[in-house]
Amino acid sequence: LIRTIDWKDDGVYIIDQTALPDELKIIRCEDYERMAEAIERMEIRGAPAIGVAAAMGIALAAKNCNNERELLEELGRAYKRLRSTRPTARNLFWALERMRKVWEDALKEGSNALKEKVINEALAIAEEDVAVCRAIGKNGSALISDGDGVLTYCNAGALACVEHGTALGVIRSAYEEDKKFVVYSCETRPLLQGARLTAFELKHERIPFKLITDNMAAYIMKKGLVNKVIVGADLITRHGDVVNKVGTYGLAVLAKHHSIPFYVAAPLSTIDLNARPDSVIIEERAPSEVTHIRGVRIAPEGTEVLNPAFDLTPNHLVSAIITEKGVLCPPYDLSFLFRQGNN
Amino acid sequence: LIRTIDWKDDGVYIIDQTALPDELKIIRCEDYERMAEAIERMEIRGAPAIGVAAAMGIALAAKNCNNERELLEELGRAYKRLRSTRPTARNLFWALERMRKVWEDALKEGSNALKEKVINEALAIAEEDVAVCRAIGKNGSALISDGDGVLTYCNAGALACVEHGTALGVIRSAYEEDKKFVVYSCETRPLLQGARLTAFELKHERIPFKLITDNMAAYIMKKGLVNKVIVGADLITRHGDVVNKVGTYGLAVLAKHHSIPFYVAAPLSTIDLNARPDSVIIEERAPSEVTHIRGVRIAPEGTEVLNPAFDLTPNHLVSAIITEKGVLCPPYDLSFLFRQGNN
Repeated sequence: LIRTIDWKDDGVYIIDQTALPDELKIIRCEDYERMAEAIERMEIRGAPAIGVAAAMGIALAAKNCNNERELLEELGRAYKRLRSTRPTARNLFWALERMRKVWEDALKEGSNALKEKVINEALAIAEEDVAVCRAIGKNGSALISDGDGVLTYCNAGALACVEHGTALGVIRSAYEEDKKFVVYSCETRPLLQGARLTAFELKHERIPFKLITDNMAAYIMKKGLVNKVIVGADLITRHGDVVNKVGTYGLAVLAKHHSIPFYVAAPLSTIDLNARPDSVIIEERAPSEVTHIRGVRIAPEGTEVLNPAFDLTPNHLVSAIITEKGVLCPPYDLSFLFRQGNN
Repeated sequence: LIRTIDWKDDGVYIIDQTALPDELKIIRCEDYERMAEAIERMEIRGAPAIGVAAAMGIALAAKNCNNERELLEELGRAYKRLRSTRPTARNLFWALERMRKVWEDALKEGSNALKEKVINEALAIAEEDVAVCRAIGKNGSALISDGDGVLTYCNAGALACVEHGTALGVIRSAYEEDKKFVVYSCETRPLLQGARLTAFELKHERIPFKLITDNMAAYIMKKGLVNKVIVGADLITRHGDVVNKVGTYGLAVLAKHHSIPFYVAAPLSTIDLNARPDSVIIEERAPSEVTHIRGVRIAPEGTEVLNPAFDLTPNHLVSAIITEKGVLCPPYDLSFLFRQGNN
């Protein structure tokens, strides 16, 4: 089994998601700078995966630093660099704060095993992600029935996590439980994570699916082919507003119009109790992602574009949020999930 | 001024819309078979344009037939061939019926100028299309105001007609009237008529616009950037249900959700009084249109797809229909438009 991201003695190995599905290419990141670039270029993407990637970036900084006295400064530099890679996904900041706490706590305790502790925490974050996705899958699969048509969006699969996935983790778990259903994968312009990555995963698992362009979703809903929508998330507010790949909000509106339940699957690390719907930073990415597809120009030169990478789906359009702790229904106040030190 | 389709002494000249925006390539069609292929391959597309193309295909059949006794048979063959090219756009069948009526009437009258009459009718259809688009533009531009954000979809422009366009004709006319507004063009997967053709036309006219991927429409609506949607049509039923490029229906649902008026601009030749919403044939096109973009594969080999080319927007989502006769509002019964021999 190949993991999306894996720590080895000589570096962190990631699957290059920009090369899929043409090529299964592995990138070795030997330092935090290379990891930061991988996140920026979306060689690794998906909220849980970039959380793990950031943690491993910090661990690489620790591992590579041979001067004990400079270790803290170096961790600070790595933290700052990795924090600046992408602005929206909560898991990135969650993982970086968790890593920082480790070295701050170790300092307070006067621990002399700082380096080891930092590396171990990154490995723990990765292992927890695997367990969390499994739990999300198990909790969510109860929502999938024989005969379902399940629409998913972007890639919230193994490639967005360490393995298994969130939204696609639910689909995987339901399939492992031998449920019979069909998946519809939206291609998800501009970067085609649905056509390239979700299709790659579903094909690999032999889960029956059909690919559609994003603008066909309403048509197949009206035709009755879809009776459930399930997507991942990059950030969830305390009251259940969901930030996810641009296009998610439109799907949620369409699902509502067709009385189709709209589910969001995500780990607790995606929840930001302090975020407010109007203060979330929506990343704007390069115009070339819209004017070109896989290197080929599709629009006249000089065409101006908008390229928001995410949108926000208000909580009233979200039928349930599937987490590792269980399936939550509206009205949402997700703060109770964190009361026993869950996060 | 280049026309999308133009009759000349040595053949019918069409702009190759599959080559845009990379190249402004002109194709000469010397016989009806080449014209039929151009329609199938979408070298010419857009409901009004393929109506004109079909009429000119018949005219080519007449022109090329040097045996008077075989002329009727040849016209019948051309009629049948052109009729089979694409199943959805009303204008194609409307133009072919109109052409057939010419030779049937000529026969009844015992006219000996059959060939000339057929060619003249095709030229008349083309000229009428120009006038009709101008009238649509004028009627519709009253709906556009300074400061508007106008979302359009696919290409309902000069390239979808002989010149000027329907939805884009309204935008063109409003711009000619010196109104200040911004256009948002959805790229319109799978064949990217918005990114390739609408962007090409808007850029050529210097009308301010931004290109978005189809899945960004909901986001820009919620952001308040769009306060009007205007699209073309391939078929309109008596009661105002609109068949248009797949994705139109989803846009109409999104517009409704955001209380944004949704306008359809089309000539009377797009209206089929006999069509019922559930009996319209929705063309399914080749899977490669979804799995490949401009020749580049984007999905794993063997990926199954859906590829409906059109969808139907129910009349209750259509705020107004802009025709050459005026702007019609719901509830729709479009039959009155045809009572004085308008069509």
